[in-house]
Amino acid sequence: MKQDMDHISRLKKDYPWIQTPLIVGAPMRLIALADMAVEISKAGGIGFIGAGTDVSDLSTHLEHAQTLLSRTALASSSNTLPIGIGFINWGADLAASIALIAQYRPSAVWFFAPASSASLADWTAQTRRASPHTKIWVQVGCVRDAVDVVREVQPDVLVVQGTDAGGHGLARGASLVSLLPETIDTLAALEKKTEDGSYMPPTILAAGGIAESRGVLAALSLGAAGVVMGTRFLAAPEAQISRGYQAEILRAGDGGQTTVRTKVYDTLRGTTGWAETHNARGVINRGYVDAEAGMAEEEGRRLYALEMQRGDGAWGVDGRMTTYAGSSVGLVREVKGAGEIVREVREGVRAVLDVVSARL
Amino acid sequence: MKQDMDHISRLKKDYPWIQTPLIVGAPMRLIALADMAVEISKAGGIGFIGAGTDVSDLSTHLEHAQTLLSRTALASSSNTLPIGIGFINWGADLAASIALIAQYRPSAVWFFAPASSASLADWTAQTRRASPHTKIWVQVGCVRDAVDVVREVQPDVLVVQGTDAGGHGLARGASLVSLLPETIDTLAALEKKTEDGSYMPPTILAAGGIAESRGVLAALSLGAAGVVMGTRFLAAPEAQISRGYQAEILRAGDGGQTTVRTKVYDTLRGTTGWAETHNARGVINRGYVDAEAGMAEEEGRRLYALEMQRGDGAWGVDGRMTTYAGSSVGLVREVKGAGEIVREVREGVRAVLDVVSARL
Repeated sequence: MKQDMDHISRLKKDYPWIQTPLIVGAPMRLIALADMAVEISKAGGIGFIGAGTDVSDLSTHLEHAQTLLSRTALASSSNTLPIGIGFINWGADLAASIALIAQYRPSAVWFFAPASSASLADWTAQTRRASPHTKIWVQVGCVRDAVDVVREVQPDVLVVQGTDAGGHGLARGASLVSLLPETIDTLAALEKKTEDGSYMPPTILAAGGIAESRGVLAALSLGAAGVVMGTRFLAAPEAQISRGYQAEILRAGDGGQTTVRTKVYDTLRGTTGWAETHNARGVINRGYVDAEAGMAEEEGRRLYALEMQRGDGAWGVDGRMTTYAGSSVGLVREVKGAGEIVREVREGVRAVLDVVSARL
Repeated sequence: MKQDMDHISRLKKDYPWIQTPLIVGAPMRLIALADMAVEISKAGGIGFIGAGTDVSDLSTHLEHAQTLLSRTALASSSNTLPIGIGFINWGADLAASIALIAQYRPSAVWFFAPASSASLADWTAQTRRASPHTKIWVQVGCVRDAVDVVREVQPDVLVVQGTDAGGHGLARGASLVSLLPETIDTLAALEKKTEDGSYMPPTILAAGGIAESRGVLAALSLGAAGVVMGTRFLAAPEAQISRGYQAEILRAGDGGQTTVRTKVYDTLRGTTGWAETHNARGVINRGYVDAEAGMAEEEGRRLYALEMQRGDGAWGVDGRMTTYAGSSVGLVREVKGAGEIVREVREGVRAVLDVVSARL
């Protein structure tokens, strides 16, 4: 309980502009850029720029974010930029990334899918040297990885991702319902084993399947200090996605049936860097159905390339374009500003709590 | 909100011995029999006998339950037996089942995986005629099935099962995190469309991944009126499972990694009746690993049959015996009486609520 409040206090100290319960915008690659990150932070959340595997345009996005933020009164700590940057570590160039971290000093960096433990340790150490006030966030999808990451790099924040999440994550997994409490219990036991005082337990944030206030209260019940949402923000004007993609997010429902975890979309796009352990959840479309029915990869890739010229019609059940989304896609029903989403979801949590309290 | 309280009042009226939040014991086939069902109901939950696909021994179990219950002061409504019976409808004999329902009048029957919509309607109609006070529960795993079932048979209770659940369920699915709120919203919209007053919305219970109090509060937050637990009760002395199975439940952790949804165990056991749409979650062992590595089905079945003679050593990572369990398996750490589990989990919910409230 005391520990619990410590994590909330720590979040408020490290990111002084936030309001609780904390809503974080997932660093969706190519989709969550400066406009979205800034709007989320302005609304009392923490916005991330999804740099992903390629940091060649990152300075442009950071420059834009800095300009947008200069017009606000957002208070960050120690002159860090009040947004974060998300890296897919196996693909992002370390030296270039560190130079940008040193220059722009984001409040947080979010690491995901490093090539090795040694690589994650390297990214962490170099970030801490380059920008001591930048907090280290690491995303994991199972208990074993949580323990390894905590032992090896002692992150400030551990993002625990359940299998409902859209986009990339562990191919095999559990949802937050069991993953979150088991991870928290296991880390708490670890803590007792390192009583030399050197170990500062990470703050736990939950990702995967959360799109509105009920999901937030569920995640807090399971032990998270705050939540991450991705899919919900796909239906924000600030999302850098085509209208076809966004229309499909609004259309798709019954997410457990209309989305699937698969490597097919990586194959169709020619993305080759992901480890065997990872795949991605997206809306089922013609590209997936054909691949499952045995279409040769080469033919699938040829049709995918052709499809890219079709415009917004290339998304949807008869389309082929990758449409990453989480199983919460059916809870996303209208386009709203990213800031409005943050406020609405956060402010709705108390009403859900009141309903639940009355029931007990 | 009003509707919400109505569901709680309705549960208390229909099952007057219960305490809230309601904890239900899943009708685990061959495992949850009279002893477990009665202990769960005695503790203020609702226990189910898992008749499954074969009702040839069911009268024995019901006779035993009746004897056990005659020694208690459990108040049921309208002289129904204060436990339920779970049927896997595609396999269970309808005529024999209805005769037993008429004779023993369970408080509830739980229907799952009927051969068709028409079959489910038949089971429901015949049950209502045979035992008018027996409540109809139907298990579903996606929004579409929830809508269909509600339209077709108007069940008293809809058990919404997320993909974390152990044993059989939909092969493809979402967890409770997104499935539960989307199902509830969709049914609420349906309700508005049938304002002739004939439609009584079902009470929603949540299943899949819940093994302790945090999961219960999460499910209530997501909109459930109560929860179902299965895996947690595998580690109860009342569970009819071998010591080897139970030991494996206590050992396995990191459930998203050590369990998997697969049809392999059905194949190895020679169970052939499940629809293509369904598979089952179990602990990964040698049988699964060999099948994934390409072992011929015939050889797998031969080794499985041999393994059955090995005793308790036939379970575990080097064993081959089917070890159905949900992704919550890592939260199950000790053997406890089924009644004690019910009380402990239920009574822990308020403490979790207090922690979460303090955080908001």
